[in-house]
Amino acid sequence: MIDPSRLSLNLITVDHWSLPEAIERCAAAGIGTVAPWRHKVAQTGLAESARLIRDAGLTVSSLCRGGFFTAAGATDDNRRAVEEAAALGAPVLVLVCGPPVDGDLAAARATIAAGIERLLPFAAEHGVRLGIEPLHPMMVAERSAIVTLGEALALARRFDDPSVGVVVDAYHVFWDPRLSDELAAATGLIAGYHVSDWLVPTPDLLAGRGLMGDGIIDLPQIRALVEATGYDGPIEVEVINPALATVPGDELLADIATRFSRG
Amino acid sequence: MIDPSRLSLNLITVDHWSLPEAIERCAAAGIGTVAPWRHKVAQTGLAESARLIRDAGLTVSSLCRGGFFTAAGATDDNRRAVEEAAALGAPVLVLVCGPPVDGDLAAARATIAAGIERLLPFAAEHGVRLGIEPLHPMMVAERSAIVTLGEALALARRFDDPSVGVVVDAYHVFWDPRLSDELAAATGLIAGYHVSDWLVPTPDLLAGRGLMGDGIIDLPQIRALVEATGYDGPIEVEVINPALATVPGDELLADIATRFSRG
Repeated sequence: MIDPSRLSLNLITVDHWSLPEAIERCAAAGIGTVAPWRHKVAQTGLAESARLIRDAGLTVSSLCRGGFFTAAGATDDNRRAVEEAAALGAPVLVLVCGPPVDGDLAAARATIAAGIERLLPFAAEHGVRLGIEPLHPMMVAERSAIVTLGEALALARRFDDPSVGVVVDAYHVFWDPRLSDELAAATGLIAGYHVSDWLVPTPDLLAGRGLMGDGIIDLPQIRALVEATGYDGPIEVEVINPALATVPGDELLADIATRFSRG
Repeated sequence: MIDPSRLSLNLITVDHWSLPEAIERCAAAGIGTVAPWRHKVAQTGLAESARLIRDAGLTVSSLCRGGFFTAAGATDDNRRAVEEAAALGAPVLVLVCGPPVDGDLAAARATIAAGIERLLPFAAEHGVRLGIEPLHPMMVAERSAIVTLGEALALARRFDDPSVGVVVDAYHVFWDPRLSDELAAATGLIAGYHVSDWLVPTPDLLAGRGLMGDGIIDLPQIRALVEATGYDGPIEVEVINPALATVPGDELLADIATRFSRG
């Protein structure tokens, strides 16, 4: 069993709701922590989003997402993301680091490292920790050249700064034969932990994720490895699957809370 | 430019053809080496398949596939696969190692190691090398618990036997930040090299592969890393994509040969 107060709903799970609706429904369902996405904050407005979250008595675990360092305009956009995180009271800005340009993975990885280095002092000033999230290798071409926990940790360690860590998402890393070794050496470096499940078969490379318990990931085992690093923060439920939009909202949130409590 | 005589057509690329048709077409197109699959050999019959290949003057680079060590009956089936490889003159039996049962990756990895250990003396007696092929991590749940080159190499090294090596498929490993380091330490361990390309977007987890040049993989770079290990054997073109069945056969083979020659 997990302390239910550790549940944070990553709001991409309910991307079919506006931010105000998600806030209201989470508060009503007793989910006290959320992780909003920037496109939804932009729709509602930053100040209004912060006010709604505060008035509902909710806590923010992270803001999704910064990164995409290989895209034009990344420097300015990431500074805005840090400011938004600070305004929302999000202790962590999740970084999806961006894909290679013309397939050049080595160049992308260098650009990403340089981008984090440039952003870090600004994030530290704002009290926002940068969480480097390695994505599943199937997302390398379109979302992130950082696709293993080992590489994300190596990148975080370069900076030796408490304002940089990694976000571990069970969906992205469960397959890795080095997972337990990498986590065993990751004390102090975990900035967040996300859960969902790997469906068999997986219908889609991006949006084919399952609710915890519907797939094959040994979530209790991965949580134990994450907690052995000393991480005792929020656990975000982040399930990207359009089928969730067809489930009545109250039912969906109750189901998520039940599945979460199982470990 | 690559020596065109190194081209081997992995016949899953033309799975819409019977084995006799594939043999005839390859011979006519000047493709002198092929890698047949067992389900097609079974349709034609083993002795007849061997005779057709021999009579057409073709060489066999590998037989696909053995493995699936986590399935019932794997021991007997893999011994049959070794016998078939020997009968066809295939120097290598490609191993797709099999998925975990109930999501238990550690148990699957142990079962796979034990299965290879059991099969190895039989393979050595028959003059067939076992080629452990790490698959892309997106295939972990349905096809192979071995999803990194590092793990495949570690597995091969355990046996310290020339009858075990690894098959490197650019599609399965290109994303790996450890690729060049792993290959730099893989001298003598490469049993085969496969090429295709990663399409953007990738339409399907299994059958969404592209012809070389249509995607983002830096194939010349990976080939250079593979060749630096000393590997100078056949390079199999293995493209799994149902769209290829719509291309006229002569055109398809000519296109493959042209793309192959570019590196």
